Amino acid sequence: MKAVVLKDKVQFGEDRKAPLYVEEVETPQPRKGEVLIRLRNAALNRRDVFIRYGAYPGIEVPSIPGSDGAGIVEAVGEGVQGFEKGNKVVVNPQMDWGDNPDFPSKKQSILGVPRNGTFAQYVTVPAENVFPKPEHLSFEEAAALPLGGLTAYRAVVTKGKVKEGDTVIIPGIGGGVANFALQIAAAKGAKVYVTSSSDAKIENAVKDGAFGGVNYTSDNWVKELKELSGGADVSIDSIGGETFNDLISLAKPASKIVSFGATRGPVNNVVMPRIFFKQMEIHGTTMGNPAEFKDMLSFYSNHKLKPKIDSVFPLEKIEEASDKMDQGSLSGKIVISIPE
Amino acid sequence: MKAVVLKDKVQFGEDRKAPLYVEEVETPQPRKGEVLIRLRNAALNRRDVFIRYGAYPGIEVPSIPGSDGAGIVEAVGEGVQGFEKGNKVVVNPQMDWGDNPDFPSKKQSILGVPRNGTFAQYVTVPAENVFPKPEHLSFEEAAALPLGGLTAYRAVVTKGKVKEGDTVIIPGIGGGVANFALQIAAAKGAKVYVTSSSDAKIENAVKDGAFGGVNYTSDNWVKELKELSGGADVSIDSIGGETFNDLISLAKPASKIVSFGATRGPVNNVVMPRIFFKQMEIHGTTMGNPAEFKDMLSFYSNHKLKPKIDSVFPLEKIEEASDKMDQGSLSGKIVISIPE
Repeated sequence: MKAVVLKDKVQFGEDRKAPLYVEEVETPQPRKGEVLIRLRNAALNRRDVFIRYGAYPGIEVPSIPGSDGAGIVEAVGEGVQGFEKGNKVVVNPQMDWGDNPDFPSKKQSILGVPRNGTFAQYVTVPAENVFPKPEHLSFEEAAALPLGGLTAYRAVVTKGKVKEGDTVIIPGIGGGVANFALQIAAAKGAKVYVTSSSDAKIENAVKDGAFGGVNYTSDNWVKELKELSGGADVSIDSIGGETFNDLISLAKPASKIVSFGATRGPVNNVVMPRIFFKQMEIHGTTMGNPAEFKDMLSFYSNHKLKPKIDSVFPLEKIEEASDKMDQGSLSGKIVISIPE
Repeated sequence: MKAVVLKDKVQFGEDRKAPLYVEEVETPQPRKGEVLIRLRNAALNRRDVFIRYGAYPGIEVPSIPGSDGAGIVEAVGEGVQGFEKGNKVVVNPQMDWGDNPDFPSKKQSILGVPRNGTFAQYVTVPAENVFPKPEHLSFEEAAALPLGGLTAYRAVVTKGKVKEGDTVIIPGIGGGVANFALQIAAAKGAKVYVTSSSDAKIENAVKDGAFGGVNYTSDNWVKELKELSGGADVSIDSIGGETFNDLISLAKPASKIVSFGATRGPVNNVVMPRIFFKQMEIHGTTMGNPAEFKDMLSFYSNHKLKPKIDSVFPLEKIEEASDKMDQGSLSGKIVISIPE
């Protein structure tokens, strides 16, 4: 089969990215309990870029990257029930979460390095990680959903407990999880406000269900957003840094900040009385458990939601796609089309 | 009646403390819905010291400080039912919390400046703030309980949801709320670990139900406490500053830090991935709602818990008592005895 292969183990700090080779490799066979999927589409995540820089624990080479994917069942291993050749499916990339819904087991991993992932014509995954593709989604759309949709669902629904009428603030709307969080929160009936450095992205977010937004390059954006929104019941934060303190300013009493990222780095000068006089909660979250993946798919089906797609690249142009994610200012997911 | 009177409105930053005058003032009369209490004991809180420095919003003079108190009903105002002269009672100093258990109303205040408080022979409070004194407690003990017990109860029970078998870390054991938190968490069946700069205080905490503790003047105290405790399910933090990051290091997966104070000031270099990869929660809390006050009294009665008392001063020596709280290293509450 054709696959993208990571061969270099870059030391983080070398300031170079491992090249991605598109090669012929042996097609895997499903072992006991596994499903072999012929992939139609994959999608990129930041994780796939970090791996090229060596900025991820447990990298092994050679291996095939890629966490998100959708395709057609080709074969099933011994003991697998409920799937047969021809089923249209999507993959949950969170492996071995374990029994505790609050926290993953030590065995947990994410599909794609070191376990061979979805940037290939075929992938084998445990049957428990295979789910029927939502009917209203194309393969491209289904492939764009798993990791971002799962992370956003746990952040918005499980941790944020966003409900109808809540005001939700999502700073840094753009490519990834933030877009899924916007879709899910808006579908829950929340009034969602976004921030961006791009007026066009704010306009796009409003088309996608946001109630409004502010451009954070304005000196007064916190004040503007406070007046516009009335303050947040829940903020969904992937930014960290100074923005985190701004979100404390924007928080209503007894409200929540759910954090799953920190693209602006550590947070300084956190004045705890601002948090405790407001009786606030801060919830850290990452990925999601198997029940949340299932619930997320049902939620997308019930609300007929579709992931936002920025662009589609053929598998052969994986480096171009990866570099776009690394440098670019995205409006949705970067999807990979896999040759038949 | 005799009362302590605050007459100076110190501007915060003047670096002086308002003197406390012990004077004869007019005895208050209970208005509609109020109870007049002849106080037997009061107790000091940090708030009473902050007020002398002007470090509190809404100070008005002249007024009588003091939030904590216990005594005997002297008279009741129009419409008050359930109390009569001679009832032994304790006062909930949290006024006008309002209907939302999660957050106090804008009307909320704490007894003692600007509303006349408990450093006096008599005080009038709304009947809803008056509760029967727990029978197993002396007046001294009952007077020591309200503000600290309420704050600790909300922190440990409502926010921390501490349960049997949990490991609880309480940094900075000493005078105030931390001691109540230790008592409540230990009575819940938690293994409580404390920190202090004083070995004697750690030993005392162990006598009071702690499982162990470490001296934080040791360079390796975080590592020592991690080995000793195995990590925290819940930390109850009044310290903030660098200690807050240490509590993140000490946190188990899916655990909580409950914060109600920041004696060491703002927290710097908060690395959010440490919070979200651990799927942690941070809960800010202050004071407590009326149901929590009632539940706290029942909890102290059911478990026959007694507040720890550092020392008892006569009302005339209020400045000496207040200065001890300001400077001192306490082992429990400072109680005031009121002349009959």
